[in-house]
Amino acid sequence: MDPRTIGILGGGQLGRMLLEAANNRNINIAILDKKGSPAKQINPTNLGVDGSFSDAQAIRRLARHCDILTVEIEHVDTQALEELEKESLSQGKKVEIQPSWQAIRTIQDKYLQKMTLERSGVATAKSLSVSSTEDVGSVAEVLGLPFMLKASKGAYDGRGNYPVNSREDIPLALEYLGGRPLYAEQWAHFTKELAVMVVKTKDEADTSRWKSFTVSYPTVETVHQDSICKLVYAPARGISAQVDQQAQQLARKAVATFRGKGIFGVEMFLLKDNSILVNEIAPRPHNSGHYTIEACRLSQYDTHLLAILDRPIPAKATELLKPAIMLNILGGADPSSYLKLANAADAIGAKVHLYGKGSATKGRKMGHLTIIADTMEEAEKDVESLISIANEIRAEKSTTGTSTLTSKISPLVGIITGSISDQPHLEACYKIFHDFDIPFEKGIKSAHRTPDAMAGYAKSASSRGIKVIVAAAGGAAHLPGMVAAFSKNVPVIGLPIKPSIGDGWDSLVSMTNMPGGCPVLTVGVNNAVNAALGAARILASWDEGLRMKVEGYVDNAASESLENDRKLQLERKE
Amino acid sequence: MDPRTIGILGGGQLGRMLLEAANNRNINIAILDKKGSPAKQINPTNLGVDGSFSDAQAIRRLARHCDILTVEIEHVDTQALEELEKESLSQGKKVEIQPSWQAIRTIQDKYLQKMTLERSGVATAKSLSVSSTEDVGSVAEVLGLPFMLKASKGAYDGRGNYPVNSREDIPLALEYLGGRPLYAEQWAHFTKELAVMVVKTKDEADTSRWKSFTVSYPTVETVHQDSICKLVYAPARGISAQVDQQAQQLARKAVATFRGKGIFGVEMFLLKDNSILVNEIAPRPHNSGHYTIEACRLSQYDTHLLAILDRPIPAKATELLKPAIMLNILGGADPSSYLKLANAADAIGAKVHLYGKGSATKGRKMGHLTIIADTMEEAEKDVESLISIANEIRAEKSTTGTSTLTSKISPLVGIITGSISDQPHLEACYKIFHDFDIPFEKGIKSAHRTPDAMAGYAKSASSRGIKVIVAAAGGAAHLPGMVAAFSKNVPVIGLPIKPSIGDGWDSLVSMTNMPGGCPVLTVGVNNAVNAALGAARILASWDEGLRMKVEGYVDNAASESLENDRKLQLERKE
Repeated sequence: MDPRTIGILGGGQLGRMLLEAANNRNINIAILDKKGSPAKQINPTNLGVDGSFSDAQAIRRLARHCDILTVEIEHVDTQALEELEKESLSQGKKVEIQPSWQAIRTIQDKYLQKMTLERSGVATAKSLSVSSTEDVGSVAEVLGLPFMLKASKGAYDGRGNYPVNSREDIPLALEYLGGRPLYAEQWAHFTKELAVMVVKTKDEADTSRWKSFTVSYPTVETVHQDSICKLVYAPARGISAQVDQQAQQLARKAVATFRGKGIFGVEMFLLKDNSILVNEIAPRPHNSGHYTIEACRLSQYDTHLLAILDRPIPAKATELLKPAIMLNILGGADPSSYLKLANAADAIGAKVHLYGKGSATKGRKMGHLTIIADTMEEAEKDVESLISIANEIRAEKSTTGTSTLTSKISPLVGIITGSISDQPHLEACYKIFHDFDIPFEKGIKSAHRTPDAMAGYAKSASSRGIKVIVAAAGGAAHLPGMVAAFSKNVPVIGLPIKPSIGDGWDSLVSMTNMPGGCPVLTVGVNNAVNAALGAARILASWDEGLRMKVEGYVDNAASESLENDRKLQLERKE
Repeated sequence: MDPRTIGILGGGQLGRMLLEAANNRNINIAILDKKGSPAKQINPTNLGVDGSFSDAQAIRRLARHCDILTVEIEHVDTQALEELEKESLSQGKKVEIQPSWQAIRTIQDKYLQKMTLERSGVATAKSLSVSSTEDVGSVAEVLGLPFMLKASKGAYDGRGNYPVNSREDIPLALEYLGGRPLYAEQWAHFTKELAVMVVKTKDEADTSRWKSFTVSYPTVETVHQDSICKLVYAPARGISAQVDQQAQQLARKAVATFRGKGIFGVEMFLLKDNSILVNEIAPRPHNSGHYTIEACRLSQYDTHLLAILDRPIPAKATELLKPAIMLNILGGADPSSYLKLANAADAIGAKVHLYGKGSATKGRKMGHLTIIADTMEEAEKDVESLISIANEIRAEKSTTGTSTLTSKISPLVGIITGSISDQPHLEACYKIFHDFDIPFEKGIKSAHRTPDAMAGYAKSASSRGIKVIVAAAGGAAHLPGMVAAFSKNVPVIGLPIKPSIGDGWDSLVSMTNMPGGCPVLTVGVNNAVNAALGAARILASWDEGLRMKVEGYVDNAASESLENDRKLQLERKE
C-alpha cells in the first residue's frame, strides 16, 4: 500500500506487533536487531541488519535500504540519526526519521524531557538536577521527603530509579545509581496512574497547536508492580469525564512539545485533587497501548504506520469499541511457568499475544493478554483468575538458585578484593556495572587475614542471590580459588592483579592452575574491563535488556575500530 | 503453549492467518507449499517443505517434522494422509490428521459430500449423478429446469459449475465440464446465502450428538459475485432469531456428519419458505469466517488451533462482539488497482488484511477488509464507498489484452488443427485442460483450405479473450505460423504432427524456421502433453490456483521418478 521501505530500530515485541500491522498492508520492513529477534521472526522480507540499534554503523547499513526510519525503543544512537538526516538532506536521497531524532534524544534524557515539558507549560513532577551528595541533601529541602532519585539516561522498567525515603538512604541511592548523571524528582502522591497513546501527524513542535496535529486514544489506567506495567484498564476506572478529557488534552499537549510524527505513549499521575502530571513519554508504541489491537478499530501499531506514511488517521480509528483489560505475561523463576497464564487466558477466550522470545526469566515480558467484555465489571471478573495466576508466577521462588534479576536493590554481582590496596584496580569494573545498570556489592575479604569472613561470604553468596563473583588478587592470589571452593556453585571470575614486585605472572598462574573441579574463570592481568564484561555476559543470558547493552558495547568497539581504520586509510592517502 | 508441531498443507492466505494465530501462541508450524507462499513469509520456524500439498512425497516429508497435520485447502492427497495415519498407528509414532482424511476425501467429492449429508438427514439440494448426455436429459425431467451441472471434484470459486437453463445448454455444459465425473443439482431458488463457521472438538461422526462436540459462530450472510464470495454481513441481515438458530443447528449437524476436529465452514441457502439447505462444506477456515478476527473474541483460526490441540473452546469465544462487514479485496485488470480499495479502507478505519501475494490478476483474492460498527446500519454506511471502489475495480477493462480469468464460459485457450484427421493427436492436450479446469475452445481452421476463416479466427482471438493458441499441423504445417502472423499478439504454441509420410521432421522445421518477429513456440513432434502444459504455464503466471495445479503435476512426475528409482534399487538387490 506504500512502495517505501520502513526501517525499524529494534526488533522486540513492539517491533513484532508493528510488523504485524505492516504485513497486513504489504509494507516492506527492514529491522535492525540481533538475528532471530521477535520481529525478525515474522518479517517476510530479507531486508534488515543483524546488529544493535545503538551501533551507528549498523544504523547506517539499515538506512541504505530504507526510505523512513522509526524506532521501537528509544535507546538508540541519535547521533547517527542526526548525521543520517543531514547527509540525506544534502545528498538529495531522503531518509526520513520518524519520530525525529530530536524528540528521541530529548526523551532519552529524562531530566531534559522534564525540563522541555515544563518550558512548554505541561505539568510534570518538579525535578532538580543533582551531581553530589551535598546536592541531594539540599534537594531534600526543596522537594521534601520522600523523593525519587533517578538516572537521567538508559533507564527503563524502573531500573535507574531509587526512592529516597530518608536522608539515610542518600548514600545507598548514590552508590546504587552512582557515576551517572542524576536528577531528583518530587514524589507524586498519586491516586492512580493514567496513560494515553497519542498519534502525532505533523513533524512540528508547537504546544499551542496541539489540536491540529495530534489524535488521542482513550485514557486508560495502568497498574505497575516492581516498576513494570502489570495491568491496563481501558477505559480508566472511576474517573470523571472531565478528568478523562483533561488527561487526553495534557497528553496531546505533551506530545506536541516534540518534533516528529508517529505514536507516543504518555504516562501520567492522577493526584488527589484530580490534577494530572505527566510522568514520562515514550516516542514509540507502548505497553499501555497493547489493548488497542483488540479494543479499537486501528491499533497503536496501525496508526503509527499511518502517521509516519503521512496518511490521515480515520476519525473513528482510536475510539474504544468495548471495555478491555490488558495483563502482561511475565516470566517466573521457572522458565515455563508463564505458559500457565497464557494457557489459562486462552481457555477463557482472552486474546493471547506471546512474543516468540524463547525461554523466560523472572520478570521478563513474554507476552500479554487482552480481555474484551461488554462492561468493565465483566472484564474485571474475567481477569480475576488470571491475575491470581500472574501473582503465583511472580511469587515463585527459584529452585535453581536464580533469584530475581528485576530487583533493584539486591546485588547480582559480588566484587571482592583481598586488600584495600587492590580496590583502585577495580574502578573500570565498577563503571561498567554502573553503565549497564547491574546491581553489585563491593567487599574486602582476605583469604589469609579474614579466612572465616571470606568463607562465610562465599558460602552465603548463592542464597543471597549473587550470580557471579569477581575476585581480584595479586601475588599468591588465593582469594578467587578459595571463594570458588567455598561458594560451590557460583561462577567466580578471577582478576589477577600485578603486585608491586613482578609482572603479575604469579597472580595469573595461581588462579588458572586450580585443580579440576574448582574452576576460576580467569581474565588477563589487571584487565578489570574483561572481568566486568565476563560477568555481564553471564548475567545477560537471563536478561534480554542486559544482553542488548552488552551487544551495544561490543558494537561500539567495532565501530571505533572501523572508524580508526577509516582514518588510517585517509592518512595514507595524504 | 504446546510443544507439538503442526503441519499445514497449503500456505495461502488461510494458512497465513492461521499462522498469525499460532505465532501469538509460540506454536511451531511447518508449512507445505511453494517457497515464499503467503504463510511461509511469516513463519518464524525453519520447518516446512517447499512443494505441493497434492504431492504424496512432499506430504510425507512434512509429516516427519510434525505431530499434527491440518489443511488450509481441501485439494490435498488424502491417499497419502490415509497411509500416514495407518503407518503412524502401526509404528507408534503418532501423526494426527485433523480434520480426518475421511472428511477431506468425502468433501473433495461434492456429490459424495451431498450424499453423505443426505444420509445423515441434513437438508441439501437434491442431486443426481450423471455420466452421459442421455443422463443429463433425464435429469432435467427429475430436477426441472434450470439446474446446475457440476464437476464432482477439483472445483472451487464456482469453477466446474455450469448452469443448465435449457436443454440446448446441455451439450455446451458437457463440453465445458467434459471428461470428469459430473452430477446435477436442483436449482436452489434462494433468497439469501447464509454461512456458519463451526468448530468441531471431537474426532467422531455422529449427527445425533452434534450438541456435544460442535460450537458455532454466528449466522452470517454472504454475497457472491462471479461465484466468488464478495461480502459477508455478520450477523446476517433481516433474518428471524428462529432462522438464525435453525442455520446454526443445521450447520452443526452437517459438520457432525464428518470425522475429525477443527473448524469447518458451512455455506447454506435460505429459501423463500425460510427453510435452509446446506450448499457446501469446507473442512478448514473459510472466507466467510474472516470477520471473526476482529468481531469475535477468538477468530476461526484461534479456535481451529484450540480444537486440533484438544483444548476447550471458551464459552464466549465465538460470540459476536459488534456488527461487522467483510469485503474481499480482489485484483482488477490493472495489477495495482486493488490497492485503491485497501487504501480507501485504511482511510476510514476498516481493518485491512493484505496477503502478501505480489502482483494482482483479475479476480484474485489479494486481501480482505473488515468494518466494525455499533450497528449494522452504520457498518453498511461505512462500507458503501468501499463497495463502489470494489465494483470499479471489477469493471476495469484490461488495457493489456488480459480479460478475466475467472469467467467460467469464455475460453482462454484456442486449440486448432488444420484438418479433422489431426484431432485424435490432441486428446492428451484436452485432458490436461479438463484436469486443470482451464476453459478452452476447439476448432478446425485450415491455412490452405479456409484461409479467410483461419485469418478471422486469429485476428479476433485477442479481443475474444483467448490467451494462448495451440495450433497443431503436419507436413507443410503452415497453420501455427499463419495464426501467429494474423493474431499479432497472442502466443502461439505449435504442435508438429507426424504426417503419414516421414517422421515429422518437416512439420517441426516448418514451425521453428519462422522469420524473426513472428514466433511459433514449438514443442516436440506429437507431444500434445507439452503443448498443453506450455499453455498452462503461460496462464498460470496470472492465476495462482492454476500455478498450484501445474506445480502439482510436476511434483507428481518427480514422485513417480523417485519411486521408479526406488524400485530399480530394490531390483538390483534382489
